[in-house]
Order: sequence, then structure tokens, then C-alpha cells
Amino acid sequence: MKITNILVAGHYEDVFRKHFSSTNLYKLRFIPVDEITDEDFDWADAYVGFMPTPQFQLSKLKWVHSFNAGVNNFLEIDGWIENGVLLTRTICSFGQRISEYCLSYVLKELQHQKFFEEKQREKKWVRKPPIMIKEQTIVIFGTGEIGQEVARTFTQFGATVYGVSRSGEQKEYFQSVTTIFDASKVLSKADWVISTLPFTKETDNLFNKELFNHFNHAAFINVGRGKTVDEIALIDALNKGKIRHAVLDVVAVEPLPSDSPLWERKDVTITPHISAITDLDEAVTCFIETLHQIEQDIVPPNKVDVKKGY
Amino acid sequence: MKITNILVAGHYEDVFRKHFSSTNLYKLRFIPVDEITDEDFDWADAYVGFMPTPQFQLSKLKWVHSFNAGVNNFLEIDGWIENGVLLTRTICSFGQRISEYCLSYVLKELQHQKFFEEKQREKKWVRKPPIMIKEQTIVIFGTGEIGQEVARTFTQFGATVYGVSRSGEQKEYFQSVTTIFDASKVLSKADWVISTLPFTKETDNLFNKELFNHFNHAAFINVGRGKTVDEIALIDALNKGKIRHAVLDVVAVEPLPSDSPLWERKDVTITPHISAITDLDEAVTCFIETLHQIEQDIVPPNKVDVKKGY
Repeated sequence: MKITNILVAGHYEDVFRKHFSSTNLYKLRFIPVDEITDEDFDWADAYVGFMPTPQFQLSKLKWVHSFNAGVNNFLEIDGWIENGVLLTRTICSFGQRISEYCLSYVLKELQHQKFFEEKQREKKWVRKPPIMIKEQTIVIFGTGEIGQEVARTFTQFGATVYGVSRSGEQKEYFQSVTTIFDASKVLSKADWVISTLPFTKETDNLFNKELFNHFNHAAFINVGRGKTVDEIALIDALNKGKIRHAVLDVVAVEPLPSDSPLWERKDVTITPHISAITDLDEAVTCFIETLHQIEQDIVPPNKVDVKKGY
Repeated sequence: MKITNILVAGHYEDVFRKHFSSTNLYKLRFIPVDEITDEDFDWADAYVGFMPTPQFQLSKLKWVHSFNAGVNNFLEIDGWIENGVLLTRTICSFGQRISEYCLSYVLKELQHQKFFEEKQREKKWVRKPPIMIKEQTIVIFGTGEIGQEVARTFTQFGATVYGVSRSGEQKEYFQSVTTIFDASKVLSKADWVISTLPFTKETDNLFNKELFNHFNHAAFINVGRGKTVDEIALIDALNKGKIRHAVLDVVAVEPLPSDSPLWERKDVTITPHISAITDLDEAVTCFIETLHQIEQDIVPPNKVDVKKGY
């Protein structure tokens, strides 16, 4: 596919100049998302940015590249298949970022960091053996690039890692992968349940009362999308001890409203959607890589399957 | 070497029975350390335990196996070389245990866990991008089994890892290894300095004012031995910003006295010598492995070089 005119939603000239040595082969426009006009869409072959414009003109484009990993905002627009528009997303180091996020909260608990902090405040020397990662069973929802990288990380430390995916297709770094319908058996063994799921029609409120009922005092980490979780059911599962702790980097409504009961719970950790924050340098590098693949008619590994939603 | 009579300092019958299938080939005595008599030493070929008895009769033994990784308590006894007594120590999974400990405190900072905890308390959604491990430079003192395992862990995440050792001999997983005399250059680049050093004549107060002066706002993690650090110099280095934070799993006097100024400092984390706590199952498994090697006249990898002290 030949790409010449690239419309970038935002003033990212500096970052592009830093990484894009062959800018002379392309024409680039850098325009804030709410100042983009019809004429810009008439001109553009490709659109690059964190989000679509309010009046997004999909049919005029050949290719859209999202600076985020999650593309639900772009998929709210209809006509991807009909217009044959390619959608790609940033994956690059999101897998490693999310792995380090998950690992930090798993280790925080296994190393009894909070306990030792309290003992230090009391000036008390009380020994308590840390628990090793290799003793843990971890169930990861989503076995795509990100889920697999999280699995690889915990497998390296000897944990037992199971996957849950739509297809149940076996993947490297997972002891086994099952479908959601067969997940109850692995869920009952899980010390940790990590969701890396995107938001799609199928994952909408997937973590509901029924699914949480299969949890057996596991900790739940959500690094996917907030709307995959029924938050009322989550709070109920915490109250019942089905879940011992929830670490939520994503919530249904972001920023989390100040009247949400999640803020004040001791058994909930809230972080403001930072586990896979986009580093612009990296996002631009990823965009350039994708551009080169497209021009050589290679299907980029970060191409979104519009029907699946990721 | 033929070993028949094994003197175990402590009532560990159950753990030995669980792992030691060939107990009929050996004679075992399990006696608490302060009840061991001269007659037991006359009888024994080997001594196994966490510490020596007060009146330790080295010359009567062929082999001593320490359940700890650090053997300074056994080395306080004279005559190892003169009497040709073999000393071995537990290493087994200490490398992984210590790696997970270090990783947990590195990630705690890089993931801004404390910051997000405060924000949650204030019910504020304030984004702050985590820092990736691959952006960090880590200097590890000690390039033995434990130091190397710590290096491997951080290298896997893409960190730049340098080693400092007595010999300066190059080792796998380290970008390079230097001697203590050449350490200033790597220390000035370090985001983290991790010590895995044993306590020996050479490492006694090794981390003194002069060495800390080369630190450039690094965090310092001590998982080696407390007496390798001059604690007055440490506090001075914290006050001057040479060290931004100290994570101390070991201190000069353990338990840390309640009047130590270290307890109350916000820039010091104290844990009660738990980073490589001995799991008895593992310690016994390691002992059995070592026993089999000795009987086949294989030099066990956990043999202590008495002159070096580890």
C-alpha cells in the first residue's frame, strides 16, 4: 500500500523529526484533534493519533494508526470493513510495561512489604518468610501479545500460568489455555487472576457475578479495560472473600468518580490507567515500523482484527 | 569421602524423613545445638546446622554443612585448613529469593506505588508514567552465585548491569565486572547499588564514607551482610543525597536496636533479614545433594573457600 500524506492528530513535530529520518518521502500535517477539517481528510492517506476526531471521515482514509493499544474509541466508528480501511495499534513495549506493573503488585504482596512497613513504624523486628513466585498459580485472561508477555514474565520465575481466551488455542508460556466456558477449574486454583482483555461486545461485563463466583480468594489485577468488569459484582466478590484484593489500573468510568466506593477500600488498589502509558518516542517508532511493513505489503503484527476488536 | 554418622543440630527429624529416602545408609542424631556433647563430636563424621555449638570441635569432623548461605559464624572458628575439614553452605534458591526481594523494591519505586497510594487516599486520579527497568543502571557488589542470579534477573528486563568483585573477573549477565578500586566510574552512573557481599576481613566496613562518596543519588540495597556497611557513613550519605534511599535487609547489629536512627528515617526501608530466609525443605534437599556429591568425590559448587570466606 502506498502512503504519502500522513495526518497526525497533535503537535508531535519534534518527536517525529527525532525518529523519522525519511520525512522527505512523505508529507506530514500535525494538527490538534479538534482543529482537523474536512479538507485534511480529503488530503490524507493515513491518520495517526490517540483518538479519532468527533466527525471522523473513515471512508476517505486508507490507514488509521492508534497511538494506544486499546482501540475501542476508533472501533466506535462504523465502516472499517466496508471501506477496507486498515487499523493498526501500538503494541511495542506495552507487554513489558504491563508485565512490570503486574509483577510489582504481585511482589508487593509476596514480599509482605506492607507488613514490614508497619513493623518498621513500630520499630519491631518480626521475621516473616516471603513467598516465592514459583509457588504461585496465575490465570491470565487474554493470550494475545500482552497476555503472552505477562505469561512469559511469570513463567520465567517458575509460576504456574494458565491462559483463558476466546478460542482456547494453546500458546507458548502457558501451561494450558482454556476458553471462558472451561475457566472454572483453573480459576479455583488461582492465586492471581490477571485480565489483559480489550473492551469488545464479548468482553463487556465479562467479569460478572457468575465468573467471580469461581474465584477462590484470588487477587484480581485488571490491566485490560474497565468496562470488562461489573463493579457492583466486584465489590460483592470482595465482601464475600471470593477476591482477596483487587488492583485496578482501569475502571468503567475514568477518571474514577470521587464518590466511587472503590477509592476507600483497603482491599482495592487504584492506579490511574498508567500500566501501559504511551511513551511518545516509542509510539512514533512503532508507527514508523508499521508504515514500512505496510509499504512492503507485509501484514503488520499490530493490525487490528475489526471483528474481534483487537 | 565416606560419611556415615551425621550430627544434625536441631530437631529436624520430620523434614529429613520427608526428603531423605536413604536414611538407612546413614546414622543420624538430631540434637538441639546447646545439648550437643563431646561424645557426639567423637561419634560424628559430619555436622549440619544453622550455627556451631559454643564448644565446637572442628578437628573431630570431616565435613560441616551450614543451613545458611552466610557462614561467618562458622568461620569464626579456627583450624579449617589445618584440620582439612570441608565446609559447605546452602545456596540453592537463595539467588532467586534475593532477586525477587530486590526486584520488589526496585519496582515499588519505578511503579510509583507510594505516590499512587497517597493519591488514592486523596481520591485523586493523577497520572505519572512508570519507569521501565530497562532504563535503569544497576551495580551489583559480589558476582558469585547470588550476585549473578540478581544480575540475570535484571538483565532479562533489559537493565544495564555492572558487577564489582574482588578479582574483577568477567562473568555472564554483567555488562562488565570491575574491582573495587575501579568501581567509581560505574558507581557514578548507578541508579541502584545492590550488595550481595558476605562478611569477611576484606568486606568489613567496605561501604564507608569514601565509597559512598562515589554514589550519585543512587538507591542502595543491602542483601549481603550488615557489617559490610559503616552505618554512620550511610546516614551521612543519605543526608547529603549521595544515596536517595536505602533498603536494608541486613544491619550491623541484628535485631536492629530500638534506638537506632535507621528505624525512623523515611529514606530507609528495614526488613528483618528475610530476603534469603532458609526454607527447611529446601535446606535439607540442598544438604542431601551436597552429601551425594561428596560421596562421589565431586567438589560441590557450594563448597566454602575458607580463605575467601564464601
